[in-house]
Amino acid sequence: MQQRWKLIIAYQGARYNGWQRQGDTRNTVQEIVENAIYGFCQQRITIHCAGRTDAGVSAAGQVAHFDLDYGDRTLTAFGLVQALNAHLLGHEIAVIKAEKVADDFHARFQARNKLYIYRIVVRQAPPIADRGRVWHRKITLDVDAMRQGAQALLGKHDFTSFRAKECQADSPVRSIERLDIETMPYDDYGGQEVSLYLEARSFLHHQVRNITGTLVKIGEGKWPAAIVADILAARDRDAAGPTAPPEGLSLIRVDY
Amino acid sequence: MQQRWKLIIAYQGARYNGWQRQGDTRNTVQEIVENAIYGFCQQRITIHCAGRTDAGVSAAGQVAHFDLDYGDRTLTAFGLVQALNAHLLGHEIAVIKAEKVADDFHARFQARNKLYIYRIVVRQAPPIADRGRVWHRKITLDVDAMRQGAQALLGKHDFTSFRAKECQADSPVRSIERLDIETMPYDDYGGQEVSLYLEARSFLHHQVRNITGTLVKIGEGKWPAAIVADILAARDRDAAGPTAPPEGLSLIRVDY
Repeated sequence: MQQRWKLIIAYQGARYNGWQRQGDTRNTVQEIVENAIYGFCQQRITIHCAGRTDAGVSAAGQVAHFDLDYGDRTLTAFGLVQALNAHLLGHEIAVIKAEKVADDFHARFQARNKLYIYRIVVRQAPPIADRGRVWHRKITLDVDAMRQGAQALLGKHDFTSFRAKECQADSPVRSIERLDIETMPYDDYGGQEVSLYLEARSFLHHQVRNITGTLVKIGEGKWPAAIVADILAARDRDAAGPTAPPEGLSLIRVDY
Repeated sequence: MQQRWKLIIAYQGARYNGWQRQGDTRNTVQEIVENAIYGFCQQRITIHCAGRTDAGVSAAGQVAHFDLDYGDRTLTAFGLVQALNAHLLGHEIAVIKAEKVADDFHARFQARNKLYIYRIVVRQAPPIADRGRVWHRKITLDVDAMRQGAQALLGKHDFTSFRAKECQADSPVRSIERLDIETMPYDDYGGQEVSLYLEARSFLHHQVRNITGTLVKIGEGKWPAAIVADILAARDRDAAGPTAPPEGLSLIRVDY
């Protein structure tokens, strides 16, 4: 009998070509997890994720689902996690949790809310312990100005200016429920970590990274905070700041 | 004219054979930093650190000093940090800070206090983002019992039972000023991080890792908390628990 399973998956984006298996692209997270499933049960099964992360983007709590017919043998969530992680050894991918779900559960379509965090480390020296997991900047950020700029992005807007030109979504309208910017010391020697917390039901392609690139322009004093309203109104990708690099971004949690 | 410099250095222990350059051992942090100094000024200079970390042990704030005769050219702390980090590119080593110090400053002999943190992650799945930087355990730890056991180690004791048999220190007596155990969620799915904070003027070889291995035995319920006093009194390495692996350990800060 077929059972639908929900997986919580963590991975280090720096090592992979994004989530989605497509064409000749090797080394995607999807392919490697599907290979682990094959290693465990010798079945070629397609898995479906909540949010397809780009190359270089990490996840602490990506969600995916798949259907498995395991005959009349017993399979526990604990056993499935153990088995998949055994087949993921050597990869920077782990299944944190597995859960039996109803046949109509869908990781992407039923996602009610997603939390992404974009981490920036500001100091002269490169961040060693978090290489590939943070965006390294050397110029101090005016976080108050960034927060002021962020205010204009909260709520429902046409985010055309903040989505990749190749974004395939039908509508550029999204509703950002949370855009907090937190700071904390990164080391004992003046280094600072600036983290952007963004929550929405769904995001456009590159939306979080384009917002981050724009707010960093403001934080570095190159643009005034008030520019954000103008950028939104322009509905033109060229009006916003550059796309922040993928390494600072992580999909933290998906709520259903 | 010769100037003594103090450096704050961070490194990922998993990639290196410990701090100390010795004999034919390649890939030590000392050797690589000395090569960076050579790359910068074409002088072969020996650097002296505060605490020689073992292979696999990381540092967020190792301290080292060295003497440099830079002729009558001007060298700022900022310029030295930039130059050394440029020569450390591709390595998981960075100079976080440089500072001019008096000629009698000594990174090791003048250290007044050192903070080490030993990080343990308890969950079923391997910790992906912190691979090589935490000790992965699957059995839940009774942190109250660990704290109770830790009490007996605070203050001045003969730590023969907790030092490596090959430890070269003249005396097995050390004074532990702090041994706190903190817990926090590691993920949103029940994973827990347990961190041991140890401070002392100096530590014996493997002392922190042997203390950690012993307290984990207690946390896993295999030994009672009261055993710690007996282990200390035994003055016998075989009485204590196993040496915890190096990857959880990090030298965080040295005070002068």
